[in-house]
Amino acid sequence: MNIDMIEAAAERLRGHARRTPLLSSPFLDEIAGRRAFVKPENLQHTGSFKFRGGWSAVSALSDAQRKQGVIAFSSGNHAQGVASAASAHGVKAVIVMPADAPQIKIDNTRALGADVVLYDRAGGESREEAAEAYTKAGMILIRPYDDAQVIAGQGTTGLEIAEQAAEVGIDAAEVLICTGGGGLSAGISLALEAKAPKMKVRTCEPQGFDDVRISLETGTITAHNSPAKGLCDAILTPAPGEMTFPILHRLAGQGIAVSDEEAKRAMALAFNRLKVVLEPGGAVSLAAALFHGDALTMDATIAVTTGGNVDPALFAHVLQTYG
Amino acid sequence: MNIDMIEAAAERLRGHARRTPLLSSPFLDEIAGRRAFVKPENLQHTGSFKFRGGWSAVSALSDAQRKQGVIAFSSGNHAQGVASAASAHGVKAVIVMPADAPQIKIDNTRALGADVVLYDRAGGESREEAAEAYTKAGMILIRPYDDAQVIAGQGTTGLEIAEQAAEVGIDAAEVLICTGGGGLSAGISLALEAKAPKMKVRTCEPQGFDDVRISLETGTITAHNSPAKGLCDAILTPAPGEMTFPILHRLAGQGIAVSDEEAKRAMALAFNRLKVVLEPGGAVSLAAALFHGDALTMDATIAVTTGGNVDPALFAHVLQTYG
Repeated sequence: MNIDMIEAAAERLRGHARRTPLLSSPFLDEIAGRRAFVKPENLQHTGSFKFRGGWSAVSALSDAQRKQGVIAFSSGNHAQGVASAASAHGVKAVIVMPADAPQIKIDNTRALGADVVLYDRAGGESREEAAEAYTKAGMILIRPYDDAQVIAGQGTTGLEIAEQAAEVGIDAAEVLICTGGGGLSAGISLALEAKAPKMKVRTCEPQGFDDVRISLETGTITAHNSPAKGLCDAILTPAPGEMTFPILHRLAGQGIAVSDEEAKRAMALAFNRLKVVLEPGGAVSLAAALFHGDALTMDATIAVTTGGNVDPALFAHVLQTYG
Repeated sequence: MNIDMIEAAAERLRGHARRTPLLSSPFLDEIAGRRAFVKPENLQHTGSFKFRGGWSAVSALSDAQRKQGVIAFSSGNHAQGVASAASAHGVKAVIVMPADAPQIKIDNTRALGADVVLYDRAGGESREEAAEAYTKAGMILIRPYDDAQVIAGQGTTGLEIAEQAAEVGIDAAEVLICTGGGGLSAGISLALEAKAPKMKVRTCEPQGFDDVRISLETGTITAHNSPAKGLCDAILTPAPGEMTFPILHRLAGQGIAVSDEEAKRAMALAFNRLKVVLEPGGAVSLAAALFHGDALTMDATIAVTTGGNVDPALFAHVLQTYG
């Protein structure tokens, strides 16, 4: 992994991925106690940064590989990112999802052109078993974060941050990132190392699911020991990736963990002050910027809000409670 | 009014107004039955395009005028746009609001640095009476739409539309705009006449408050005859402006009127598919794109969504009903 791969991915994404703006509000600056910018990747195609990685991976395939098609295991944002990117390239995509995934996610992924294969998680079937016929037939697996081209795609966000921060006169800042397996955080870390070396990535996770924070502290890949479900479902992974962790260990600062309530308050503030829709897992970075200022050391912060695919009923509830 | 004034305003706004992106979703294209882009001015500073006009007007003042300060009559988006722009220029701003305006709007306008003067609308006091001491003292009145520099500022949105549409390969489109007094629609019409002459502005209003549509049809400024209140409060004006109407009469196509229910459905779709927050009046253009396709004639449409300053309880209700 290096900056050349990220710049090559940026070339492939040009005109396809959206260049999300850099947002800010004096009201958020005041709460944060410093200049607080937001890079809203929830405004990316398919509602999350995952489109970048999906596009990068699909566009990097050879013609022979494209004919094999691609496969992904995901019921969430990675599924939609890969489905949309594959469809635009005319590449067949199979997305493997648990049969008990929300119907709206299954429908959306199908509407984006993918074949959805369901597996009986409750009945003990594994996703690998469900996918076996497709992988044996040679479909290319696109992993959500431990994949060099996926990390390169996510890293294009970092190239934009470096450019957009320079436009507003910022060269040093802590870049707060909602972190699951670490693909986005690793990609942005590499991009900033090359393009804005005074910036520092800080991974942000929900309390109890802060495996990256713990791993950075111990210096070795360590899983959290919470159950698999939680409010911030989009970014709940058991442990950082084999490819992403060494990059984060070398480049990122200390991890930050926020409470579910802080994530919901950040969702309501993003609604009121920035007019954008965040899912709980996509608001964790903004929550860290607003409510964990004591963990920050620089005068400016840039929070990458990573997704906006939230159930309307949950969003309505958050507004009624925190709006 | 001419394109040179709009380009001069763009120069003054550079680095201060946000260049909002051009958004789209295959799901919205399908509903619209054509390519449907959204220019989300709800993501502009202060949550509406009014910041552009406010900045343009304040930045065009002479040094002597700036010392006098500025005054505006508004309880809504124009108030916040002028307050924010004046504050950034170090210019004193007085905003005259009815005493029964929502407390949150009064608080926000004060927090943006303006002095808020309240008048007793219910008790029969006029806003001009309340403002008399300030206007006599020489404060400069910034009108919400019948002001050349305000129209020029709003028109900068049109320059961006021309550039961003060209980037995605679109040179002909109907540009749908939520319309109150017509400042934004007139400014964009002039910008597109010069920069993208195959584009056509279509004004969009709530049914019953479609004074611009009626005026365009009759060829003369005509007021609607509805009471002053309605769901789409941000864009309810009795009649088009003296400066804006001749421009619209020369350049705009037929007006379109949408129902309150269509506006609310558009808000829910913008939430689900674009991850942006729209106020009812700011969603009228998108409602026209999605639900009034029979009134459109071109293969592509660009809906300017004009504001996102909506009460959280109302937004929650819209999600629960239409989400």
